[in-house]
Amino acid sequence: MRAYDLIRKKRDGGTLSPQELQHLVWGATSGGIADEQLSAFLMAVFFRGMDPVHELPAWLDAMLHSGQVLDLSGIPGRKVDKHSTGGVGDKISLPLAPLVAVCGVKVPMVSGRGLGHTGGTLDKLESIPGFSTQLSIARFAELVNRLGLCLIGQTAEIAPADRKLYALRDATATVESVPLIASSILSKKLAEGIDGLVLDVKVGRGAFMKTLADAQVLARTMVDLCKAVGRGCVALLTDMDVPLGRAVGNAVEVAESIEVLRGGGPDDVRELTLQLGAEMLLLGGAPGVEGDPKLARLRLETALANGSALKRFGELIDAQGGDARVIDDLSRLPKPKKVREVRAKGSGTLVELDAELVGLASVDLGAGRARKEDPVDHAAGLLLRMRVGDAVRAGDVLAELHAADEAKLDAGEARFLSAVKLGDGPVLPRPLILDRLS
Amino acid sequence: MRAYDLIRKKRDGGTLSPQELQHLVWGATSGGIADEQLSAFLMAVFFRGMDPVHELPAWLDAMLHSGQVLDLSGIPGRKVDKHSTGGVGDKISLPLAPLVAVCGVKVPMVSGRGLGHTGGTLDKLESIPGFSTQLSIARFAELVNRLGLCLIGQTAEIAPADRKLYALRDATATVESVPLIASSILSKKLAEGIDGLVLDVKVGRGAFMKTLADAQVLARTMVDLCKAVGRGCVALLTDMDVPLGRAVGNAVEVAESIEVLRGGGPDDVRELTLQLGAEMLLLGGAPGVEGDPKLARLRLETALANGSALKRFGELIDAQGGDARVIDDLSRLPKPKKVREVRAKGSGTLVELDAELVGLASVDLGAGRARKEDPVDHAAGLLLRMRVGDAVRAGDVLAELHAADEAKLDAGEARFLSAVKLGDGPVLPRPLILDRLS
Repeated sequence: MRAYDLIRKKRDGGTLSPQELQHLVWGATSGGIADEQLSAFLMAVFFRGMDPVHELPAWLDAMLHSGQVLDLSGIPGRKVDKHSTGGVGDKISLPLAPLVAVCGVKVPMVSGRGLGHTGGTLDKLESIPGFSTQLSIARFAELVNRLGLCLIGQTAEIAPADRKLYALRDATATVESVPLIASSILSKKLAEGIDGLVLDVKVGRGAFMKTLADAQVLARTMVDLCKAVGRGCVALLTDMDVPLGRAVGNAVEVAESIEVLRGGGPDDVRELTLQLGAEMLLLGGAPGVEGDPKLARLRLETALANGSALKRFGELIDAQGGDARVIDDLSRLPKPKKVREVRAKGSGTLVELDAELVGLASVDLGAGRARKEDPVDHAAGLLLRMRVGDAVRAGDVLAELHAADEAKLDAGEARFLSAVKLGDGPVLPRPLILDRLS
Repeated sequence: MRAYDLIRKKRDGGTLSPQELQHLVWGATSGGIADEQLSAFLMAVFFRGMDPVHELPAWLDAMLHSGQVLDLSGIPGRKVDKHSTGGVGDKISLPLAPLVAVCGVKVPMVSGRGLGHTGGTLDKLESIPGFSTQLSIARFAELVNRLGLCLIGQTAEIAPADRKLYALRDATATVESVPLIASSILSKKLAEGIDGLVLDVKVGRGAFMKTLADAQVLARTMVDLCKAVGRGCVALLTDMDVPLGRAVGNAVEVAESIEVLRGGGPDDVRELTLQLGAEMLLLGGAPGVEGDPKLARLRLETALANGSALKRFGELIDAQGGDARVIDDLSRLPKPKKVREVRAKGSGTLVELDAELVGLASVDLGAGRARKEDPVDHAAGLLLRMRVGDAVRAGDVLAELHAADEAKLDAGEARFLSAVKLGDGPVLPRPLILDRLS
């Protein structure tokens, strides 16, 4: 089998066999196929796509098995994870994982770091003093068994073919291909050894997918692909035109997550946590829920109200080496050296708060990364005092910015103000859940 | 300027500026742009093409100027070359160059070697004892000035960007792109410092372009592109379903070329030489021709009849270090160790003689290369005793095979017989010239 012939076949719209797709994935993993050939193949896939029935499942399977696939079958109960395509203020994994675990579905969650305007679950967790996301696979499995959840970072053993191919895609403008995106995400998630997956596909200015139609295509592809390889899957398409919740950063998002686990928090964060949680309980066949969405929601609301989800989060923090006292005392989270209130220059209704620009403001403040190798400041970020639809008068505080120095505050403030648009009210309430695919 | 952004722009159907195209070509030449990025760009061009007005001339100009461009402006008279897209038995350059030169148009010809089933002018010339195709640029210019022609191989200084990009295309299945083919050919040909170019675009089983429609697209692109950069250009689209002439190989093709220069030779070789020669005389403004195709042809026929073209070929051979006595004594050409006659197994009209398979038979006999680094046997090849349309009886000699040993004769014979198809006659005469574009 020659890589040249496989590139040519894809280029001309042919359908590659499972053996041919496996040859390419193995060649990417081993270095046996040259980078220029892999890149030409990826660009051909950008134009020709992959057959959702005859190609994509085999391609995903080869990617998945390019590295270690966890076997959690020895742990009783179904394992379900959630994946978000990335947004601004998206801290949902933090309250969601302990909430679902305490309701009886196991959550073995492997997460990523923030890049560009979007944040990452690992960076947020690491703002809890002592919290480690680098656990051994054995310890990971032990915590999933004992606590029903564990949150770690990707290991070198998981889907090495994806790491190689993603680096090439990043250099060759072949990231924006639905089959490549879908197989990249799923190869990493399915390596966790899960039975089911709930997808949160973000839509809007702060998301990778800017339109509902594009997000629907990606969600449809991922749901079908996940099912084709024998896993349950549901996708919610959710709004990312504006940031989720009031906190954007790291420690500030942990604090907001703890508020949700205490039964409070911003409405949208709580609601999305409940909606995604209900899907996870249904996919995971949670005890006492009997496949009924209403019972699932009730079960989740109870776990928030009675403090059991919060307690489970504390146990998890403790087990992963962190200071569990943060769940009762938010002042134990890292504090910024400098705080600044951003005030409105004019009056009107807050009609727009561009999620991407707010995310970039958070990066300016030090909370995120422009490049993969940059460090993050766990204490940096921002808190929204006003949200879309609120009436604003000149001089009102729009947001509180956290950073290490005045220069970062200056940059963050300028960027934040560029995200704000005042106009004539009222603003129609925006739906949080735009679509659901299963 | 980032290569990533240029790949993305082409991928999305945008039009690259001359500066952007130059950046890519320079990056290919210098190594400043990674192979994987160049390959992804080439695949994007495969799908998106290049704008014939706003992109292709600038791309060609950058390719051309990636290396040395000969300045022959100090040599009086117009310089015109001919390029063939490659075929089987295509020795036309050999009689054509001295014929056109003796009629008053200068021919500075840089040629290539054979690869796969197609032969190369350099390999044929080098079968003349002592003939050197590796001359300095100064010597090349001197011979073009003094004799009106010179035939050499490509130097490392000519179009290095094309060498780099062609190697990538060859590995990544991006050879078959009309703008990339056109710019590759023209970047090498225009570096010769010519004023005009006649293209022989081959069509059929033994050609790169299998259909007339495909060949027309390539010819149209090359003619327009050549004119866009200020050079005259005419393309003839000619048949390559069957081999050209009776000789396929190296020394055998030199002998056939000398027969044409003596005023004889197979009809099709003589006719194509005259047709291409007339176009060259017209493009080159040959003295006494006054832009009249009939006068051009008459001038060429006279030069064949009076022996002046043959004499000029002898002078060229002598100037390039070869044994010029071959023009009077063909027995001075290399002789094969083994000769075998291939006889017909049955009777009928010879209805097909597949050019590609005949070309591969010649490679089997040792005359060509399966890979670039293979040596060639100048004495190897074949002579057709029967041509399409001839009546064949069982036992008739179809061809004479030349090779170094019996094993090569066996392989060549088997392949040759697979090219032969006998049927019920008569066969309609096939047109040699299928189209002309200017």
